[in-house]
Amino acid sequence: MRVLGVDPGLTRCGVGVVEGVAGRPLTMLGVGVVRTPADAELGHRLVAIEQGIEQWLDEHRPEFVAVERVFSQHNVRTVMGTAQASAVAMLCAARRGIPVALHTPSEVKAAVTGSGRADKAQVGAMVTRLLRLSAPPKPADAADALALAICHIWRGPAQNRLQQAVALHTAKAPKGRTA
Amino acid sequence: MRVLGVDPGLTRCGVGVVEGVAGRPLTMLGVGVVRTPADAELGHRLVAIEQGIEQWLDEHRPEFVAVERVFSQHNVRTVMGTAQASAVAMLCAARRGIPVALHTPSEVKAAVTGSGRADKAQVGAMVTRLLRLSAPPKPADAADALALAICHIWRGPAQNRLQQAVALHTAKAPKGRTA
Repeated sequence: MRVLGVDPGLTRCGVGVVEGVAGRPLTMLGVGVVRTPADAELGHRLVAIEQGIEQWLDEHRPEFVAVERVFSQHNVRTVMGTAQASAVAMLCAARRGIPVALHTPSEVKAAVTGSGRADKAQVGAMVTRLLRLSAPPKPADAADALALAICHIWRGPAQNRLQQAVALHTAKAPKGRTA
Repeated sequence: MRVLGVDPGLTRCGVGVVEGVAGRPLTMLGVGVVRTPADAELGHRLVAIEQGIEQWLDEHRPEFVAVERVFSQHNVRTVMGTAQASAVAMLCAARRGIPVALHTPSEVKAAVTGSGRADKAQVGAMVTRLLRLSAPPKPADAADALALAICHIWRGPAQNRLQQAVALHTAKAPKGRTA
């Protein structure tokens, strides 16, 4: 199973590709950050994120895309941008019929560290160990994207296969109605 | 000046096209709602909204797209969906080099009714009068989209022309970096 994890953000959108199955060693295929300039217009930042995500989908052809589920507890301005960046990532995946899974930050932390309240350093350390890297991926957004992909792989293939079947089925007949 | 107004939403995305210049009678060229089923997966809803907005852009070739600026005061779940739908609308416009303007709900209400705290009925009544329609557009999302377009036309051509020049310039060299 090959998964693209996306830690959405307007300024830094973390992306990481992990391949493997639950219970076996995992392989990192790529990690990076799609950046957009903070002084650019919002519409153009979203276009730049779309182009970046499309490149990652083209290059790695993931079977699943795992995106961090955005909550509204935090800073209001940041959260709106995060929601908009996540929309672009989900749109790119769904257009290709790739199933999109949303995982909460605590689900991801619990998956890779055993604790839903782990800090960034702990997540980075476990991602480094699980993917047998020489150093933690930088910035933290990149490590978080890999953690999302790992979380998705470990959540169990049965649920993911069901989701994939539904996504492929729905992609054949998207329902956009204009009235 | 031809403007597509978008009142973003996942379930109902209001769209309306208005043509005219400040100080002259305005003309409605089209109004409608892009709907997506509430039980569909989020990714597919975003794809359906993209298809709907693209149809409106293809058909009416607006010079500007005016989108409601999303705030986070209201219901958290609704606001995230609204932010995601607005991201798709902005993305569609920016991809074509069409400048995107964001107007707050109170700016729009103040523009068409004279009061930033006007209610939906008042906005609907003024939209009906200003566009010389026989009845208020239904649902309210459609009327709000027309009000957004009117607001944009009345905000003054000088500011809009500057924005248009910037958008066209930036569209030629979008900066999506992958590191």
